[in-house]
Amino acid sequence: MEIRGRPLATVDVAMFAVRDSALQVLLVRRPQGPGEPFPGRWALPGGFVDVDRDADLEACALRKLREKTGIDAPYLEQVGTWGGARRDPRGWSTTHVYFALVPADELPQPAPDAQWHAVDTAQKLSLAFDHAALLAAAVERLRGKVEYTSLPAFLLPREFTLSELQRAYETILGRELEKSAFRTRILATDLVVAVPRRREGPNRPAQLYRLRSRREPVFFQRTFKPAG
Amino acid sequence: MEIRGRPLATVDVAMFAVRDSALQVLLVRRPQGPGEPFPGRWALPGGFVDVDRDADLEACALRKLREKTGIDAPYLEQVGTWGGARRDPRGWSTTHVYFALVPADELPQPAPDAQWHAVDTAQKLSLAFDHAALLAAAVERLRGKVEYTSLPAFLLPREFTLSELQRAYETILGRELEKSAFRTRILATDLVVAVPRRREGPNRPAQLYRLRSRREPVFFQRTFKPAG
Repeated sequence: MEIRGRPLATVDVAMFAVRDSALQVLLVRRPQGPGEPFPGRWALPGGFVDVDRDADLEACALRKLREKTGIDAPYLEQVGTWGGARRDPRGWSTTHVYFALVPADELPQPAPDAQWHAVDTAQKLSLAFDHAALLAAAVERLRGKVEYTSLPAFLLPREFTLSELQRAYETILGRELEKSAFRTRILATDLVVAVPRRREGPNRPAQLYRLRSRREPVFFQRTFKPAG
Repeated sequence: MEIRGRPLATVDVAMFAVRDSALQVLLVRRPQGPGEPFPGRWALPGGFVDVDRDADLEACALRKLREKTGIDAPYLEQVGTWGGARRDPRGWSTTHVYFALVPADELPQPAPDAQWHAVDTAQKLSLAFDHAALLAAAVERLRGKVEYTSLPAFLLPREFTLSELQRAYETILGRELEKSAFRTRILATDLVVAVPRRREGPNRPAQLYRLRSRREPVFFQRTFKPAG
């Protein structure tokens, strides 16, 4: 058995939330210490796999999220792995990329070096390493899956109206959906359960719902009907 | 910058082909040498990333395929990465899993320790490491994508009839498709180009086609209509 050197192994996480009616992602400033690549640049939160502490890659991703944000167990999905000789000046490296979805009522106070950015803004920044490509892949995966899954529901607070759910879909997709087809689709699945409460406000009181499962997304057979 | 030990890094490839009207996968026997885990057991072909020879993970996967099969550049797609403390007795390890699709007219003579197995049979073998889970994930990814992409076309010889293309879909999906809807769908896309030749045989001569691109799959808006 011959092993000619081992790649550096890191995990990076694109943590998404809906804030101020926009899809946002948490970025951290790269540290300034000696030997640190891309000092001061924005990057996805992450870091080295610690073979003494992390049972597996998922555990490493959750640890990085906890350290950066205090969030414990959001929805987490592997996007892919990028590995090669040129992506990190410290040597041949692999990074295992995850995206996480944070519910609106569990948004953490970010660490001092971390900040939320609208995804569209973040994609115009000059990010450290190949993180622009990693972020683009995570956004593409999320937007692609939104077409036929219940993933946006993981971005809502614990109780929500169907209008709020529709707005979460529209925010991620960047286009409007037809209201009655949306409600019919959602209510025809086992996705949501009505709770015995209504949202009071300037309009008619609206029925509140919760997710049947806070862990597993629902898959639909078809994409959503656009508005108009 | 603190790095507490680096995981072992390997690449494993599920190489698929259609042989004897069945979806098959190439497996290799684990070596018997001292310190080799799972000696003599069937496994997916793969091995350690070589940071001196491999420019990136894809290059490593292609090198492993070349060494085991002589195949140069089949369709290759990353399935995911499995990493943790317990999956390899030699230590904390990550494996980067790819699937490859081999055209029927480029099927290699496998290396002496390699052999094709029907996927259904392979999934009942006691594979080395966690390769049963890796194979299951690769098969699930392939079957899922077949519903809305042109991936089965990468398993056909350079020239094929529409009936042969339909059979490739049906072989992977494990169910029959409605013939006229299938032909309409295929001909409505830019997937295939007619060549000035027909397949002669016991039946009416059938028009031959080739793929417009041998590299990039086509994505469809909907799944295929089942037969009957």
